[in-house]
Amino acid sequence: MELFSSLTPVFIAIICVLIGIILKSNRKGKSETKNKSESRPWVDDDLRDSTDLHVEKEDADGDWQGLDENIAHVSFSAERYSEGEMIKRSKEFYELLNKRRSVRFISDEPVPREVINNVIKAAGTSPSGAHTEPWTFVVVQDPEVKHRIREIIEEEEEINYKKRMGDRWVNDLKRLRTNWIKEYLDTAPYLILIFKQVYGLLPNGQKKTHYYNEISVSIACGILLAALQNVGLVTVTSTPLNCGPHLRVLLQRPQNEKLLLLLPVGYPSKDATVPDLTRKPLDDIMVVM
Amino acid sequence: MELFSSLTPVFIAIICVLIGIILKSNRKGKSETKNKSESRPWVDDDLRDSTDLHVEKEDADGDWQGLDENIAHVSFSAERYSEGEMIKRSKEFYELLNKRRSVRFISDEPVPREVINNVIKAAGTSPSGAHTEPWTFVVVQDPEVKHRIREIIEEEEEINYKKRMGDRWVNDLKRLRTNWIKEYLDTAPYLILIFKQVYGLLPNGQKKTHYYNEISVSIACGILLAALQNVGLVTVTSTPLNCGPHLRVLLQRPQNEKLLLLLPVGYPSKDATVPDLTRKPLDDIMVVM
Repeated sequence: MELFSSLTPVFIAIICVLIGIILKSNRKGKSETKNKSESRPWVDDDLRDSTDLHVEKEDADGDWQGLDENIAHVSFSAERYSEGEMIKRSKEFYELLNKRRSVRFISDEPVPREVINNVIKAAGTSPSGAHTEPWTFVVVQDPEVKHRIREIIEEEEEINYKKRMGDRWVNDLKRLRTNWIKEYLDTAPYLILIFKQVYGLLPNGQKKTHYYNEISVSIACGILLAALQNVGLVTVTSTPLNCGPHLRVLLQRPQNEKLLLLLPVGYPSKDATVPDLTRKPLDDIMVVM
Repeated sequence: MELFSSLTPVFIAIICVLIGIILKSNRKGKSETKNKSESRPWVDDDLRDSTDLHVEKEDADGDWQGLDENIAHVSFSAERYSEGEMIKRSKEFYELLNKRRSVRFISDEPVPREVINNVIKAAGTSPSGAHTEPWTFVVVQDPEVKHRIREIIEEEEEINYKKRMGDRWVNDLKRLRTNWIKEYLDTAPYLILIFKQVYGLLPNGQKKTHYYNEISVSIACGILLAALQNVGLVTVTSTPLNCGPHLRVLLQRPQNEKLLLLLPVGYPSKDATVPDLTRKPLDDIMVVM
């Protein structure tokens, strides 16, 4: 009993140490889980954007109003067409855009730079969350930079394809080559790489959240695609998997910019083909109440 | 000493209970943190979309090619304009779109349904990841449904505004009313609610991932905005915070659809005003290499 009672402080000490270990391992476990979920190699971390979908700050506005209340309001009026004209214009616009296809065979024929300037100016008229205009359009015309982009993308795509195909790899090699080889990255006279600015920087160096930046920049890209179709140029909407960070560094874009889309732009090559796809009819995409 | 030693088992028992409490409260703390981060009322859970940014499956294609390899390829050619025409067309398209503004004052004057059909058909020509066409355009013209939408949105917006303003609330009440009161939801002849289908359903009932569905649907919305501007109609891009699930249920959309944007559509009202904003010049949004 004497021995026991003299051991009491020792027991307490051991138990304190045990509690310490339990608490510590608990905390460690948490951070390990976190790291694990963040290091999936097939996820393009540069395309992740926690500021985008989740509006967690308190000053987001539902209708994308600019938040500066001191700005003056001016009267607004729009072009007014007759009903007949409206129907005609809407039909013609649909018919123009319905001829658009994603084209992978792009001629190396030069395209006037002024046209590229104008289609990007058109894209820049897009609305954006709180009028942040969170987009950067990088136009690459230098053959060496284009080729370097091609190397970066094909290297990654080859890994993607090889990884994903497993057993089917050997049999399907020939078909696959047409997928991971992106000749248009060399031949197209312009590559337009569209970056979203996931945050801005205030004059005092603080970060300024860009709400809905991905939706905003994607809307701008929709306008860009319409503008390209309107002048007879073709492109293919591409999201180079895992290449975002590489390409951002190559093009010397700052850390707040993430690659959203890459559009090779030019005339279609003479032997261009497209898959014989159809589009859903109106009844499948529209519901009227 | 005798007393002490007889207390040893009691000490140990107390300490065991303490460890138990610590472990339990630890676990509880974790789940509370989790619940807390999941129940932030100002985050629209229905706008969250884990399938969107992260391409985690192995069959995503960088250039949005349809994955069906059995599809035939057909030859493709595009309208060819002279360089002069291209420059003119690109300039005119920019000038047309540059007149677009987000307008909150919308007349109740009726708009031909055929025009709405055509602008939605135009939006449906958008490219989409693996040609999934993951969009549903819900056109609401019924005054009662429009009013119910207004009630749902204003109720949420009022909560958002009141919560976020805190002390400034009383002083700013007047200014704020103009923000959370959305008269256009009643007056606009049409409300177009654009849903993204975050996954599809295969004939066997299995879920089919819709890669890049949010980018795809946003691009379609960019085309829709251009089509509306082209016929002289106005809208305001809005993302009703926290209302997605409510509105989805009201409009009887299935669970795989999440509200992306709401566009009230009509002619501008006669006394419409817009904030006197400018757009970034080309040099601020374009980089040429």
